[in-house]
Formats: sequence, C-alpha cells, structure tokens
Amino acid sequence: MNNARVLQRMRFLVEADKVKSVFRRNRVLHGERHENDAEHSWQLALMAVVLSEHASPDVDVLHVVKMLLIHDLVEIDSGDTFAFDQAAVLTQREREEKAADRIFGLLPSDMAEEMRAVWEEFESQETSEARFAKSLDCLGGGVVPNHHHQGGCWREAGVTVERVKALNGAIADGSPILWEYAEGLIDETQQDGFLRHADAEA
Amino acid sequence: MNNARVLQRMRFLVEADKVKSVFRRNRVLHGERHENDAEHSWQLALMAVVLSEHASPDVDVLHVVKMLLIHDLVEIDSGDTFAFDQAAVLTQREREEKAADRIFGLLPSDMAEEMRAVWEEFESQETSEARFAKSLDCLGGGVVPNHHHQGGCWREAGVTVERVKALNGAIADGSPILWEYAEGLIDETQQDGFLRHADAEA
Repeated sequence: MNNARVLQRMRFLVEADKVKSVFRRNRVLHGERHENDAEHSWQLALMAVVLSEHASPDVDVLHVVKMLLIHDLVEIDSGDTFAFDQAAVLTQREREEKAADRIFGLLPSDMAEEMRAVWEEFESQETSEARFAKSLDCLGGGVVPNHHHQGGCWREAGVTVERVKALNGAIADGSPILWEYAEGLIDETQQDGFLRHADAEA
Repeated sequence: MNNARVLQRMRFLVEADKVKSVFRRNRVLHGERHENDAEHSWQLALMAVVLSEHASPDVDVLHVVKMLLIHDLVEIDSGDTFAFDQAAVLTQREREEKAADRIFGLLPSDMAEEMRAVWEEFESQETSEARFAKSLDCLGGGVVPNHHHQGGCWREAGVTVERVKALNGAIADGSPILWEYAEGLIDETQQDGFLRHADAEA
C-alpha cells in the first residue's frame, strides 16, 4: 500500500483515537464513571440525527454531525476545559488553536483545511449548523447528565442556577424547543435542592 | 415541557446511552482497556467522513454515518457477539431482532420505522452505503486495533490468517483500496508471528 492519501488519513484517525482517553467532568448516564470525549461525541452526533426536526429547517444535518464528531479533537493536546473554570477558560482559545494546527495538519492538505474550517465554524457560532451543534453539546454534555446525577458537576463545583442558565442559554439559539426542555430539567434540579440560587451565596 | 416528540426522543437517547457500558473484544489504540460500543461507533462515523473519498462515488455519506451511529444499539440487550465465536453467531440474528424492536420502538413511530430500516439495511448488506459501513466496521473495529496490539483478540482466540482474511474480505466490497490497506496490515501481523496459518494447525 503506497496510496499517500489513505496512509495520511489513517495516521490522522489513529491519532484521533486518543480522545478515548480524554475524560470529561460529567458522568455517563447509566453508571458513575466519567465519560470520555469519544463517547460524548458519539452521543451528540446521534442527537443531531434524532433531534434534527427541532433545528431550524435550513440546517444541513451532515455538516452538524461532522462538526460534532471532530469538535473535541483539540482536547487531545489541550485537555478538557470545564466551562465553569474561569482561569482555564481564559487560556482555552490559545491552547486549542495550537492543537487544531497540529491535529488537523495530519490530514492531506485539502482535507486539513476543510476540517480546520469546520472546527472554527463551531467555535465562531455564526451559522445555523454551529448553533444547533452547540445546543446539543450543552444539552447532551451538560444539562442531561447533570440533571440525571442530582446536579452532578454543577453541584460539585457549587455553581448557581443563574450561572447554569446563563451558560446553557445558548441552547435557545439552536433550538427554542430544546431550550424549553433543558430549562425544565435545570429548574427541576434546583427545586430538588441540587442547585442553589445566587442570593443564597455568602 | 409537554411536547411528546421531544420527550420520546429524549427517552430513546437516554436508553441509547447504555451502549457506553457494552464492551467489545478489541482494545483502544492508545491503551490496554477494551473499548465500548459508543466510542467504537464514534470512530467509525469519523472514518466515514474522513475516508468517504475511498467509497463508491454514489455513496450518501450522511446515510452511512446514521447507520454507523446506530448499528450497535441492539447490543444493549443482546451483548457484543465476537465474530469468531461460531455458537454465539448462530443465535445472534434472533437476539438482535428482538432488541431492535424494543430499542427503536422507543422513538415516535415514523422515526422508529426509519431507524429500524436503517439498521436492517446495514444487516442486509445490499446497498453501497451498507457495504461501505461494513468495510469501516471491519477495518476500524477489527483490523486496525488487532494489528496495533500484536494480533490482539485474533491472537487471543487463536484464529488463522485465512479466517481473518475470509471474515474481513467484505472490506473489498465497500472499498477496494481500503481492502488493499487492510490486507497489508493482516499480512504484517502474520509475518510478525502474531497470526498463524491454517496448515500450522493440529
């Protein structure tokens, strides 16, 4: 085998396999272990297919799926950044840019450019596809598992219901009906005593 | 929230999360632990996007991705069946049919029918999409990890290079060039002494 395009792509895919060892703050739904970026990305891609009826009708589902399959590959180098860790969030962009250059750079150059652009599109949040992908990331990677695990990493980090709503409000930009659903889960988590109000601080 | 379609779909997605606890024979590439069906399905969906140039030009990539994202959901009920376990393979179809009825049946009925049909299509291997999906399943879920891990579960099960080639020969039906690549990896595994020949039996 000396087909350079096959060999380069396979080298990228072997490298991408490393996200199976990048663990996230949240836990799998049926168990107590933390989930990794590969299974998280599978879940979001499946959500994109199953929930596409609830996105804006102009959304290209394949494009959303591509975005979700690769959105966390940069974490192979930069690690998972917890959305409520303000210090880590400050340096996140720079760390992830460098990682994107290296990882997508493993592909044949035309595909490297295409994939890097898809990742940038997700980060920039300017297209309907990027906004729907972000909705699913917040819903599947945060709201659903944290509701399921009695507040989960929200409770562990002691964040308020107001911050949780502010950070996940982006769900409404991708799908108003999914935000209605998500807000219901957040309220339920708060009513069950697993999320505190801002005025309960001090 | 009382939108029945959102609630039904979310119930399906919560159930689907159980594949994160269905472990396969093969191991992740960068580590020694066995991989689960969720991360396996992510890997194959990413391969479909990255390697689509090597499929037949009429292949609908979104359809292939859908197939790969859901192809192992039946294993939530039926468990992973090792392709070289002949007794288990005999009952596999029946166990998986029952599982498909239950799991896809959680979706709103139009989508349940659609997803059940996509799963059947993968199983029947009659379309270009199903054949390409199968190629990726054999390559990503068998040949690459077993080559990477010095024969991996082929060596553990003592199978011959002839059986490995017979079982993975389906890769050629989905992509001749990927079969050329896969056959090279199988031969290398045999030359390195991790796969025996049939005539070395007895």
